[in-house]
Amino acid sequence: MNASDLGNLIPAARDGKPTFVIRDARVINVFTNEIVRTNVAIANDTIIGVGNYSCEHEYNAHGAYLAPGLIDAHVHIESSMVIPASFAKILLPKGTTTIIADPHEIANVAGTEGLSAILSLAKDLPLDIRFMLPSCVPSTPFEHSGAVLGAADLLPFLNEPNVLGLGEVMDYPSVVGCAPDMLEKLSGFFSKPIDGHAPMLSGRALNAYCLAGPRTDHECSNFSELKEKLRNGMYILIRIGSAANGVLEMLDGIVSENLPTDHICFCTDDKHLENIRSEGHINHIINTAISRGIRPLDAIRMATLNPATAYGLKRVGAIAPGYRANMILFDDLHTIEPKLVFANGNPVDPDAEIPSPAVPDSVRHSVHAAPVSPEQLLLKANAFMPIIETVPHQLVTRLVHRAVPTDENGFFIAREGLNKLAVVERHHETGHVGVGIVDGIHVQGGAIAATVSHDSHNIVVVGDNDPDMLAAIDALKACGGGFAVVSGGEIKALLELPVAGLMSDAPVETVLQKQRALLDAARALGTNDECDPLILLSFLALPVIPEVRLTDCGLFDVTTMSFLYQN
Amino acid sequence: MNASDLGNLIPAARDGKPTFVIRDARVINVFTNEIVRTNVAIANDTIIGVGNYSCEHEYNAHGAYLAPGLIDAHVHIESSMVIPASFAKILLPKGTTTIIADPHEIANVAGTEGLSAILSLAKDLPLDIRFMLPSCVPSTPFEHSGAVLGAADLLPFLNEPNVLGLGEVMDYPSVVGCAPDMLEKLSGFFSKPIDGHAPMLSGRALNAYCLAGPRTDHECSNFSELKEKLRNGMYILIRIGSAANGVLEMLDGIVSENLPTDHICFCTDDKHLENIRSEGHINHIINTAISRGIRPLDAIRMATLNPATAYGLKRVGAIAPGYRANMILFDDLHTIEPKLVFANGNPVDPDAEIPSPAVPDSVRHSVHAAPVSPEQLLLKANAFMPIIETVPHQLVTRLVHRAVPTDENGFFIAREGLNKLAVVERHHETGHVGVGIVDGIHVQGGAIAATVSHDSHNIVVVGDNDPDMLAAIDALKACGGGFAVVSGGEIKALLELPVAGLMSDAPVETVLQKQRALLDAARALGTNDECDPLILLSFLALPVIPEVRLTDCGLFDVTTMSFLYQN
Repeated sequence: MNASDLGNLIPAARDGKPTFVIRDARVINVFTNEIVRTNVAIANDTIIGVGNYSCEHEYNAHGAYLAPGLIDAHVHIESSMVIPASFAKILLPKGTTTIIADPHEIANVAGTEGLSAILSLAKDLPLDIRFMLPSCVPSTPFEHSGAVLGAADLLPFLNEPNVLGLGEVMDYPSVVGCAPDMLEKLSGFFSKPIDGHAPMLSGRALNAYCLAGPRTDHECSNFSELKEKLRNGMYILIRIGSAANGVLEMLDGIVSENLPTDHICFCTDDKHLENIRSEGHINHIINTAISRGIRPLDAIRMATLNPATAYGLKRVGAIAPGYRANMILFDDLHTIEPKLVFANGNPVDPDAEIPSPAVPDSVRHSVHAAPVSPEQLLLKANAFMPIIETVPHQLVTRLVHRAVPTDENGFFIAREGLNKLAVVERHHETGHVGVGIVDGIHVQGGAIAATVSHDSHNIVVVGDNDPDMLAAIDALKACGGGFAVVSGGEIKALLELPVAGLMSDAPVETVLQKQRALLDAARALGTNDECDPLILLSFLALPVIPEVRLTDCGLFDVTTMSFLYQN
Repeated sequence: MNASDLGNLIPAARDGKPTFVIRDARVINVFTNEIVRTNVAIANDTIIGVGNYSCEHEYNAHGAYLAPGLIDAHVHIESSMVIPASFAKILLPKGTTTIIADPHEIANVAGTEGLSAILSLAKDLPLDIRFMLPSCVPSTPFEHSGAVLGAADLLPFLNEPNVLGLGEVMDYPSVVGCAPDMLEKLSGFFSKPIDGHAPMLSGRALNAYCLAGPRTDHECSNFSELKEKLRNGMYILIRIGSAANGVLEMLDGIVSENLPTDHICFCTDDKHLENIRSEGHINHIINTAISRGIRPLDAIRMATLNPATAYGLKRVGAIAPGYRANMILFDDLHTIEPKLVFANGNPVDPDAEIPSPAVPDSVRHSVHAAPVSPEQLLLKANAFMPIIETVPHQLVTRLVHRAVPTDENGFFIAREGLNKLAVVERHHETGHVGVGIVDGIHVQGGAIAATVSHDSHNIVVVGDNDPDMLAAIDALKACGGGFAVVSGGEIKALLELPVAGLMSDAPVETVLQKQRALLDAARALGTNDECDPLILLSFLALPVIPEVRLTDCGLFDVTTMSFLYQN
């Protein structure tokens, strides 16, 4: 707060002159664990007092519960496929008023320009967006992303007002192995919050990792992992989003061992807009926690004060003088469904569009792929061909070897349920194209392509014939990125994501409609019911998930961290 | 930690190669509230793991409790009258390994040079000293201190490694009244920790104060005050030092209402070396808290993790990988008397001298008082003379008016138990001398003078005859400041405090001996048993404590904030 803001707000608080009052609420105090039936006074965007106040503009809560706005401690906005303003429109009605975002995806596409762009897109929204700077761009050296970010690229962003620290340090082998560029990042951010990401890391390796700086973890998948990390001083972010591994067991463990919860927070990481709409967001995690026996006020604190403390946010996460007037009103303390949300002191209208800052040109027209010739999609097969085999309902894959159908020249042809998969470098027109074989998606008579392709976000395309695959690639090049379903040379569905090839700036209802049309078109190609073909496709090029992936450089064995072949 | 430190410590943690192991301790984990009997591995000054470790250098704890080193959340080093190295020697054996210091006193004497000096004196000591920058120098405009510190003077110090934020904002009227220079300080430090100091502030004024930035308070004197401030989001620092108002009632309230304790910490503020020696330091507050029903692990957390969180200290306050190896070993979980203290991984020898960095010349020879003539000590009396009346065992005074003894010229003479009091400006040789009358100290046949005279630290002198008062002033000018007791023109006791007139760099045992000799000499002048005349004298010039004070400008009515007369 600058001196002029203070000069306005201090007299309002001192003289009891609110601009808005929420009357007769059961106000939850996260510092004292109390519920007090009283009024909350607001001046502009700030709470100035709790108690006996009145004013011309009042909202009568008639005794409903009033809690601080909820905080998502770790989320990737880009995974929603909409720009921050649209994301805000979906999140706010669910009670999430602050998010800690890691703009890892846009940074892989557009580097520091991508970071600047998303910071500008997040400005002055009713959703309070803070940023952790992506620590691992690119995620591996086995692919070509749009940018490489070192400590010197990241540190200047600490001067931006909403930048908090260093984002999830996924590359734990580099930490534990003391890679010089990683140590430079960690020491540069040592006094700031540093997010961890260390699935199953334990014992001495975990000790080394914690010592190196990361102080949160959102990858716990069982209670003993959670407890070891908690003992080490990590803030544990319990995640329910697209992933939710082991959450119930972890909650049960916390309850049965009566662990302190003040170093436990909640996050979604990634969660699809449709699911947020239908199921909820952070409030859904609170409700899950309460249903397993966490005390309601503790669960609310885990979604408010705890993440604020973990990330050093001074003015959010509580209802008290000086705090931002972000609050949620609800009727049932055991199932939190916000009936009204206040963001910066204003009631949120779930139907109102939220105006977005202009999308910077630097992140439009981000698809820079060299032309792909039909020959580049040819894959010479041998008798013992490595294949990516998908696993129902999971993102992991299996590496299998077997003979595959070939044409008269020995090139693989996509038959017998097998599809061709290709990854086309799309940032610097290098002409790199990786080609492989995938079993389990089962596209018939067409192709599906995407520029959302973690983490380098090259073009990934799957199909059973090369002409449709080429057409799908061309469709994405033409529209600046997104998702395309092509059949018989015709575009059956297209979701344009013109912002870095990752996000849409169209109205959010349009995006949701197109997402549904896209899935319908994919299903019409006969894709396997046991997977979401669009999500699965987006992860087939990420060479950190076992067992096998395809990058623009070739087919990669994640177990041995080496290429099976390079194209 | 820089990249090179990380490069040394990460492999030690990863490979389980400690340089020192504490074997078989009951290790207290403040994150999980557990006590686990195990080993702690240390490399250099850092904990690298808890569990199964061994090494050539081991200490066998034989099952004793091992807790993190204790933190004093708010203390003024200068009040100990010794330099930081000597203070460390007294504190470490009591288990206090980190202090949050407000160098308010030296700043009033020597401004930014004083701040730089104490920062340099605190470097590389086994006691971890962090600083909050003094926000109110001078404390009032009704006196002359050695310096005036504005926001522009303070902000550059944020670049110093151990500087955390803005020190206790005592001048709450300026905050609530929006004084421009105060708003400039508060906004400049808004994103940093800001200490409060707001005794009895409540309701809307307290709301305005909290909104303005201060987020701690160590001045609560009853439970309802504590609870209101806690509700407002303040960290409450429960103080037992020279002052300990209402502590037992507050602890009882916390226990009976089962309030969360994670926003409650402990501090001493000021505590005399003798009392620390005899009674303990932060461990004494823990023991008091436990004796009133606070759970031992909660009490330990209030002295470790809680203040670390409140002040954003990342690597102290817990026993976990990456934390500084500051720990205390003790036998009884209900009465914590450290039997061994580890500071930066080294066992503390209570008898060893701790080498100090050199005292900068800038804070020596700080007594710059113009010569005081006998005429300047004359006080013309009238029939209804305002008098400072002391109150037994307290620092507050009462303002009374009555006729006083006079000589033939109508000047006050110190008889009938009344003493003369004078305050001599000693920073810029301005020649300002305030003269007043005090009842209740009862010096007979001599004078006592001090350069420790809150907060401006001018020379304050009390006596029953002008020659001895002048001699006492001269004694302090000659030795660079301190305390002097003079009788019959002879110096009966002298404590030299050559560092800013506030601290001694002599061996701590010498200082303690001289402190005792000083009190003995004061008592030999017949001083009132119901006060410590030296402490009382040090506060008689502080124009913020009710009801009446003497500054170098004249006699000041604290109730009306105006001068009764000016000299």
